[in-house]
Amino acid sequence: MALKVYVDRMSQPSRAVLIFCKVNGIDFEEIRVDILKNQQYSPEYKAINPMYQVPAIADGRFKLFESHAILIYISCAFPGVASHWYPGDLSKRAKIHSVLDWHHSNLRRGAAGLIFNTLLAPIKGLPLNLHVAKESEQILIRSLSKLERFWLKDGRFLVGSSQPSIADLSLVCELMQLELLSEEDRNRILSPYKKVVQWMEDTKRATAPHFDEVHRVLFKAKKGIRESVATQFGKPELKSKM
Amino acid sequence: MALKVYVDRMSQPSRAVLIFCKVNGIDFEEIRVDILKNQQYSPEYKAINPMYQVPAIADGRFKLFESHAILIYISCAFPGVASHWYPGDLSKRAKIHSVLDWHHSNLRRGAAGLIFNTLLAPIKGLPLNLHVAKESEQILIRSLSKLERFWLKDGRFLVGSSQPSIADLSLVCELMQLELLSEEDRNRILSPYKKVVQWMEDTKRATAPHFDEVHRVLFKAKKGIRESVATQFGKPELKSKM
Repeated sequence: MALKVYVDRMSQPSRAVLIFCKVNGIDFEEIRVDILKNQQYSPEYKAINPMYQVPAIADGRFKLFESHAILIYISCAFPGVASHWYPGDLSKRAKIHSVLDWHHSNLRRGAAGLIFNTLLAPIKGLPLNLHVAKESEQILIRSLSKLERFWLKDGRFLVGSSQPSIADLSLVCELMQLELLSEEDRNRILSPYKKVVQWMEDTKRATAPHFDEVHRVLFKAKKGIRESVATQFGKPELKSKM
Repeated sequence: MALKVYVDRMSQPSRAVLIFCKVNGIDFEEIRVDILKNQQYSPEYKAINPMYQVPAIADGRFKLFESHAILIYISCAFPGVASHWYPGDLSKRAKIHSVLDWHHSNLRRGAAGLIFNTLLAPIKGLPLNLHVAKESEQILIRSLSKLERFWLKDGRFLVGSSQPSIADLSLVCELMQLELLSEEDRNRILSPYKKVVQWMEDTKRATAPHFDEVHRVLFKAKKGIRESVATQFGKPELKSKM
């Protein structure tokens, strides 16, 4: 029985798990849990993930959620996964855990908080919160600076690696969510961080063609989301509102 | 050369790492990094952890930060650690990763956000933010409910275990920070969650006498911090301010 992977491609950790499975030739079935339609709250999905979030997996009777835990589990449970994704070496593995842990309260909190509070909240029936958006942007900028000056200082990929790990995939998929911003805002935020921009390109290239294929939904949704917010709240430009 | 463990016992992840080392008989040297005195910003400590946070470790030339990554590393690198702390079994290990990942954006965000914005911010020269404190308390309450109804539903310890793992220690040390609240507020928040309260007791007992010994600084600081906030802002009772 193939691994079941429960995802919504609009969710950045879902995309990381999907791309990882595709790149590594895992035999899996993609099951869409449409967050916009609140399918994560269905009784069927509650039995998979009682936290009502995507992604989650079911490997036979074994169920698991939280994308980093999933990426680690698949790396270890499926023999075809190349070792650079989650190295067996204790020190290298520890550094990957370190950057994955750091991610939660830094890059993810910043990027996801910014996008949610400038664009996605109304889709979930919540008001935009530009105060939280501003705080989130500050966390994001600090995190980008740490990526540029520390996490990417020793190599093309995170923590001095010459090949991508699960951490590269997780963090780059998070940053891809900034595609939903206007090109002007996205460039203003990202372009000062040359290593970060190059690393995003390198990670895309290392996971081609799956990276772009899995992100297609995001690229397509971009226009619709921005137009919907503009209709309700005016043009969602960060600089003019903060 | 003994493992160097850089901590401030007022920090909950620092305490988790310290208790873990003591319980498992690790040969280590505790190096205090006094956060109140901003010692985390010293050039010496920046070379250990450029994120300016505790805890961190140095095992010879190998340096590591983020408490979960540290607990996993020590579990694997030091042969004396009993296997229940970080089981080798793939599924059990995956569940521990899952709860550790969940912790970052849920229990930790709620508990740490609440304590910082009702008590600790002035000590760092920042204003109290009772709006953020209220949001944090809501996240904390939701997280306690998930602990009670999901994470602790199958056993004395997290994810159905009969013995504690690194996740139990990390999460219980986080909840111990609620000791800084008044007894009334602490009881109001915690007492509806019977399994959580019992689990905290079980974790303390499983790590005695080190648990109480390492927490002594927190118990001692409690009175001083509450009096200092009361002098500046009036009595720090959540109910009356929110």
